[in-house]
Amino acid sequence: MNLVLLFRDDFISENRVRLRGRRLKHVLEVHRAAVGDKLTVGLLNGAVGRGEIVGFDSEELEMEVQLLKQPPLPVDVSLILALPRPKVLRRVLFTASAMGVKRIWLMNSYRVEKSFWKSPLLGREKILEQIVLGLEQAKDTIMPEVLLKPLFRPFVEDELPGIIQDSLALVAHPGAEQPCPREVKQPVTLVIGPEGGLITYEIESLSSIGFVPVSLGERPLRVESVVPFLLSRLF
Amino acid sequence: MNLVLLFRDDFISENRVRLRGRRLKHVLEVHRAAVGDKLTVGLLNGAVGRGEIVGFDSEELEMEVQLLKQPPLPVDVSLILALPRPKVLRRVLFTASAMGVKRIWLMNSYRVEKSFWKSPLLGREKILEQIVLGLEQAKDTIMPEVLLKPLFRPFVEDELPGIIQDSLALVAHPGAEQPCPREVKQPVTLVIGPEGGLITYEIESLSSIGFVPVSLGERPLRVESVVPFLLSRLF
Repeated sequence: MNLVLLFRDDFISENRVRLRGRRLKHVLEVHRAAVGDKLTVGLLNGAVGRGEIVGFDSEELEMEVQLLKQPPLPVDVSLILALPRPKVLRRVLFTASAMGVKRIWLMNSYRVEKSFWKSPLLGREKILEQIVLGLEQAKDTIMPEVLLKPLFRPFVEDELPGIIQDSLALVAHPGAEQPCPREVKQPVTLVIGPEGGLITYEIESLSSIGFVPVSLGERPLRVESVVPFLLSRLF
Repeated sequence: MNLVLLFRDDFISENRVRLRGRRLKHVLEVHRAAVGDKLTVGLLNGAVGRGEIVGFDSEELEMEVQLLKQPPLPVDVSLILALPRPKVLRRVLFTASAMGVKRIWLMNSYRVEKSFWKSPLLGREKILEQIVLGLEQAKDTIMPEVLLKPLFRPFVEDELPGIIQDSLALVAHPGAEQPCPREVKQPVTLVIGPEGGLITYEIESLSSIGFVPVSLGERPLRVESVVPFLLSRLF
């Protein structure tokens, strides 16, 4: 936690917040913070600044906060992931959030196991948890949006054409002829398939609406690595 | 497992191998393989090819193998990591191995907790396990070398000057003025610090022997993400 994310509800007066639960525990146990210590804080969807600890006990902690500057810039990408297995999903949401992705779709694909869609880790609270941890890692405050699309075809045919407008639309595909471009200067829509890859029909559907298949090189990587690998290359 | 890694000991004749244990289990349970199926295989530190399953029971599996082509090219990087916490170490070794890193040093740093050096995950077998899994993920066969350097100063003063010869020596450092270069055409020696970063003395020691501090941008990332992020940018 490189930043303590604050919510409107935490404020007990204009500049003072009161924290409990996870954040209290983290500040006391990991930061080993004491009265007078200053921590980096940020208001959800708002500015970043400093919080000075003015008092705490085992139940709650109070800080005087000053919010001074804007959070880091987001990356201008719409990230569309074939739903990964639940344990992987947690790490990928964390990473995407930490890297500044603000629009995430989790879509179905032939090689996504049906059971993944029933995982409790897809619950609103669980998704939010990883996204908040990612923001705290990256000293960011702007909440990404995560949307679930359990039907491939209607998503690709009815929604994706709108999403990709005015963006470079890429689908990561092992064996694609074109390598992934570097340092692009425009918005990107990026599709990352499941373990085992998208099937031919899916690649064709995406190509037919304007996606270009791009390769990551000879080595198949896990989706946890593909996300930082591609974002680093593209931006 | 995108490739079944074979060892000399697996061969029962020139072109036939017998597998047990983890690989047998994986081939049967994950690939749900049957007699006649062909899988990608590779010989440790050797060529890659195909193995046809000729028979199996619950104890062992036999394949006829043909080794035909070279494994993917390595990345020309010497990767020096401040020893991460054990759980993270496992993932980082896997990722570095999968991405084609062949020389890894785990070094001490002020912010590395002493207890990390006592972790059973630093045992030879445990390190090998993650590295083999990484090779199997990336369809590679060339075993990386992993060396432990529990003393910072002698490593930096006596060994690193030799390691960095004829390479671009970079240390990832939040707040560095220079951004990490892109698509370099030369060997790189890359130092990645611990959670919380290297301390000033450490950055100065590295700078004094020729390392250039480079920034990854505004967002502090976890070492699991920093490795693919930097390798993707550099190569």
